[in-house]
Amino acid sequence: MRITLQSGNIPAPKFRYSPCVKIGSSYQVSGMVALDPASGTLVAGGPAAETACILSNLQRALPDYGLGLDDLLIARIYTTRMDAFVDINSAWEAVFTADRVPPARTSVGVSALPLGACVEIEFSFVKSEASII
Amino acid sequence: MRITLQSGNIPAPKFRYSPCVKIGSSYQVSGMVALDPASGTLVAGGPAAETACILSNLQRALPDYGLGLDDLLIARIYTTRMDAFVDINSAWEAVFTADRVPPARTSVGVSALPLGACVEIEFSFVKSEASII
Amino acid sequence: MRITLQSGNIPAPKFRYSPCVKIGSSYQVSGMVALDPASGTLVAGGPAAETACILSNLQRALPDYGLGLDDLLIARIYTTRMDAFVDINSAWEAVFTADRVPPARTSVGVSALPLGACVEIEFSFVKSEASII
Repeated sequence: MRITLQSGNIPAPKFRYSPCVKIGSSYQVSGMVALDPASGTLVAGGPAAETACILSNLQRALPDYGLGLDDLLIARIYTTRMDAFVDINSAWEAVFTADRVPPARTSVGVSALPLGACVEIEFSFVKSEASII
Repeated sequence: MRITLQSGNIPAPKFRYSPCVKIGSSYQVSGMVALDPASGTLVAGGPAAETACILSNLQRALPDYGLGLDDLLIARIYTTRMDAFVDINSAWEAVFTADRVPPARTSVGVSALPLGACVEIEFSFVKSEASII
Repeated sequence: MRITLQSGNIPAPKFRYSPCVKIGSSYQVSGMVALDPASGTLVAGGPAAETACILSNLQRALPDYGLGLDDLLIARIYTTRMDAFVDINSAWEAVFTADRVPPARTSVGVSALPLGACVEIEFSFVKSEASII
């Protein structure tokens, strides 16, 4: 059965979808853009700031989803600013530090994103039976 | 083992891939563009019409896949017309009505889609053990 | 628990992510661009050559991941050259021949890809309990 998971620590979606859905051991987080937790609007500052905000919001929400970063299977990064990929990558590496096993990742340069964002990241988690027990 | 699932209610793929694949409890529907069930060609009418057609075709095929909309984990919307996102969203909300728990969703603006489509949607389903039993 | 899978038969990732991650029965391969196994740099030759290289590298790595092509759920093709989709498709059909059940597939035209590639493909695998036993 599909269960919707919500967190009061991040802005609610602007459209009709669930921020995170759980079916069995699969947890799927919808594509996130960089919404300021206080104002609910897109943060200023471009690719680096948006990436840092998305990863910060994810970490704020994960406890409410019953997940940790170690359950992350893959992150899919969409950006309208592939020319600033080095900045996106630096923000990524500030969270996924060299001392931890990184998840899989796919990065794609696109033409437009919701709310005028320049970075959007989607996250797929799987909770293995071992970690459920 | 990979099982391919087909439906006689929607046009067959134009290329060599399976419209829906099942492995274990994961059911993956290939990216769908808005093919008219009668003619097999792209429907006219733009973003709203294409979105409505894709969601209609999905619902026509689901019984043959052994799935229901409640098994949907995430829909990934790709569009060359992010400027018409409000129309895509209206067509979405006509199916995913306010009285049901919505799936996760990711929306991305892209530069081109197969067959000249302006909307393509990919669907990932998971059938939990509870719903299989 | 997240396990990172590596293969010495293909170039290592240029950024901090795992080439393939396993959690439970889900195996997720990161988006691959066409890196020459000998030089580690992007192959020349455009869409057809890049697609063939990616699929060749995938097949070189699969034994180290404990996977076969029959475990492939879906391939997601991103290309900056949707105008050359026929060439990409030919390279695809050279691997996914008519005598085997094809996986699901999603194809999207995008504006830019890492390392200046014109084709990137992401692969999601699931190993069913039947094939694990």
